[in-house]
Amino acid sequence: MARFWNVFTLRNLLVLSLAINVSFMLRLVYVTVDIKREHMMAVDRSQREALPMQGAYLSVSSATSSPSLATFPDGDRDRAINLDHGDPTMYERFWQQEGDKATIVIPGWQSMSYFSDIGNLCWFLEPEFARQVLRLHKIVGNAVTENRHIVVGTGSTQLFQAVLYALASQDSEEPVSVVSAAPYYSSYQAITECLKSGLYKWEGDARSFAKEGRFIELVTSPNNPDGFLRDSVLNRSGGVLVHDFAYYWPQYTPITSSADYDIMLFTVSKTTGHAGMRIGWALVKDREIAKRMVKYIELNSIGVSKDSQLRAAKVLKVVCDSCESSSNTTESLFEFAYQLMVERWQNLRVAVKHSGMFSLPEFSPGFCKFTGRIFEPLPAFAWLKCEEPIEDCESFLRSNKILTRGGRHFGVGPQYVRISLLDRDDNFDLFVERLSSIRKDNLYQHMGE
Amino acid sequence: MARFWNVFTLRNLLVLSLAINVSFMLRLVYVTVDIKREHMMAVDRSQREALPMQGAYLSVSSATSSPSLATFPDGDRDRAINLDHGDPTMYERFWQQEGDKATIVIPGWQSMSYFSDIGNLCWFLEPEFARQVLRLHKIVGNAVTENRHIVVGTGSTQLFQAVLYALASQDSEEPVSVVSAAPYYSSYQAITECLKSGLYKWEGDARSFAKEGRFIELVTSPNNPDGFLRDSVLNRSGGVLVHDFAYYWPQYTPITSSADYDIMLFTVSKTTGHAGMRIGWALVKDREIAKRMVKYIELNSIGVSKDSQLRAAKVLKVVCDSCESSSNTTESLFEFAYQLMVERWQNLRVAVKHSGMFSLPEFSPGFCKFTGRIFEPLPAFAWLKCEEPIEDCESFLRSNKILTRGGRHFGVGPQYVRISLLDRDDNFDLFVERLSSIRKDNLYQHMGE
Repeated sequence: MARFWNVFTLRNLLVLSLAINVSFMLRLVYVTVDIKREHMMAVDRSQREALPMQGAYLSVSSATSSPSLATFPDGDRDRAINLDHGDPTMYERFWQQEGDKATIVIPGWQSMSYFSDIGNLCWFLEPEFARQVLRLHKIVGNAVTENRHIVVGTGSTQLFQAVLYALASQDSEEPVSVVSAAPYYSSYQAITECLKSGLYKWEGDARSFAKEGRFIELVTSPNNPDGFLRDSVLNRSGGVLVHDFAYYWPQYTPITSSADYDIMLFTVSKTTGHAGMRIGWALVKDREIAKRMVKYIELNSIGVSKDSQLRAAKVLKVVCDSCESSSNTTESLFEFAYQLMVERWQNLRVAVKHSGMFSLPEFSPGFCKFTGRIFEPLPAFAWLKCEEPIEDCESFLRSNKILTRGGRHFGVGPQYVRISLLDRDDNFDLFVERLSSIRKDNLYQHMGE
Repeated sequence: MARFWNVFTLRNLLVLSLAINVSFMLRLVYVTVDIKREHMMAVDRSQREALPMQGAYLSVSSATSSPSLATFPDGDRDRAINLDHGDPTMYERFWQQEGDKATIVIPGWQSMSYFSDIGNLCWFLEPEFARQVLRLHKIVGNAVTENRHIVVGTGSTQLFQAVLYALASQDSEEPVSVVSAAPYYSSYQAITECLKSGLYKWEGDARSFAKEGRFIELVTSPNNPDGFLRDSVLNRSGGVLVHDFAYYWPQYTPITSSADYDIMLFTVSKTTGHAGMRIGWALVKDREIAKRMVKYIELNSIGVSKDSQLRAAKVLKVVCDSCESSSNTTESLFEFAYQLMVERWQNLRVAVKHSGMFSLPEFSPGFCKFTGRIFEPLPAFAWLKCEEPIEDCESFLRSNKILTRGGRHFGVGPQYVRISLLDRDDNFDLFVERLSSIRKDNLYQHMGE
């Protein structure tokens, strides 16, 4: 045995050790390249997405500018800015800062079945997503979750339709009326009417609703488009309230109390900025209503993407963790978004004042139980009013290459528009700059006359 | 300088080299642990899913047994087997064999926008998914893709509704009739009727349809539930055909030609087994119809999960790669599933023969251009007929703890049932064993009398 070891000189051992070094080095490069390749593909994709498109079907883009672009070339300053949709791309920067924390890895053999949790009333609900939803509401304190069923949907858009189906009666001769106080979210009407359903019927502004019979009142609070906190306006029997709380988060409005209603809708899009996931959730008190909502989603899409639910769970977990962290170096998602909204609303109000051609809603401050701060609401949309002589605000802004959604879509007049404030920094900055430059003394030039 | 090098003895260099080795080892462990942790979480989840549930809302489970369970404890042999849904869990084994090939990594900051490809008519379609869809059709040769628009949907279920919306007229007083030759896919009726739409109306069996006016005929080929290849049965003007090709893949039926129709629907669920993704696609010739389908999906769910589209792209890529690989050691997905279906149909036919109480459809063999094989169709469902004195086949099998879907759901009599053949091995084996044991001489015992 001793003889065996004697054949190894110190030199032999060194060569062996160096060989092992090289082998480790290669292995490490191999493993890292594999991971990097995935990430590179992801980065590539993102950069591709960030390129301006030519001959776009949607005539211009809200999503075409690079999130990291601090300045833009002169030719780019004339580009159209699409703030029609509430595309929440301003959140990209936060998630880039978070690095790999919210990265998800899904092997090919995972999540293949239709079923997520067959013991649950909502059999397509991923348990980990449900856990993080409950955890987030507990941390933020914006909704009561005790004795509620969670129903997951392909965005809160699908959940809204599930609610209509669940509340309508299959046996009734008359469709149930659907109303909301104007200005109301434009999609409510479009969705309710699109299939000419015999189960429910859009009846418009809740304030002017005088019809007999059963009704559903949609209460969006903070309201889309105008940002005000809302309560039901119809104070009579025969109605069911549906609360859309897409924007009841501490970056948009003070969390004054824990909402405690029968049917409450939420969406990941406006909470964390992940609109592309198409994930929303409902908190529903009544078991039969929840069951009928599940039935609708079963018929409409046989459940909800598991991949997106798993990713949403991961993203919500990172948000919860960042709120619970005691470290001062960790900025929570809500703090990031709140600071950005403060800055954007300040800049917007300065631009509106400088222009003199527009006005914005004024809000009262409130005490936020989550942050302990007193602040004025910072809505995700600006509900902008054009002053005279501008009659059609959407057309006017369009002629200035600012795409918005006109008041008529929301049940009010054309002097109003809804403008998304959740776009990427460069788009928002360019919008504010352009708005600011529209003044009474150069108005006719801006009207293209 | 020479002096500097002199301080290093061979022994020093060896120690240094060993230290570098240790450092590499730690680094490698660190990187690997990071990846493994993600994978372990995924495995954990999958195993949790595989646990039988107590007090299940859906009374029994098709998805509760472990995919790797070759034998089952005696107590487990009496469990109910749910073959009501076409849950394609038999594919899990293939994807486990493929290991990390189809693993997807999505960083937190990716795919946040609503938009995927604003230059495309279908603005929520992920370009890489579209590329792999085109590639797969080209490889398999089951559908013509030239001059078609791809519309992605939350499963082909959502696409079916998008087609109804797109083909119906918003202005017409009369709803368009929707028909399909019986036995037809049970969900067609349920979905068409559920909202009492004024745009379209379910009119049942196409063979007995005699109404005037516009109609949509749904042609499912191979047919769900009975597996036969189909053509339109209504040969008259005023109709539009919609081809549901969910099962037109070479593991289920010979690919005899490249389908070339105006509206063709496909789904990832039945192609690769990833039902939980909820991803389907339509190939649509007419631009206006495609645009209206996109409009429906915009209203119904503001697009389709990006995460699932990206994962579907990856999975389809692996399938394409496995088909194109010249290596004999690589088994393609289609070969894996074909071999399994051959085996399952053989076992099922032996059991049916042994029992003597049931019958199955008989199919003619065809030449598959993709594989170059001649074989008989191997449908994803068994369309089983109970012989007399059994009248209600679904109830009879239910009393033997085999859950199936009865003929009435498909527009025919109760002597038929549809049984999924895509479940995990242990569930399928137990089903065949149980079916085989039902014989005329012990029938009354099996009828619970």
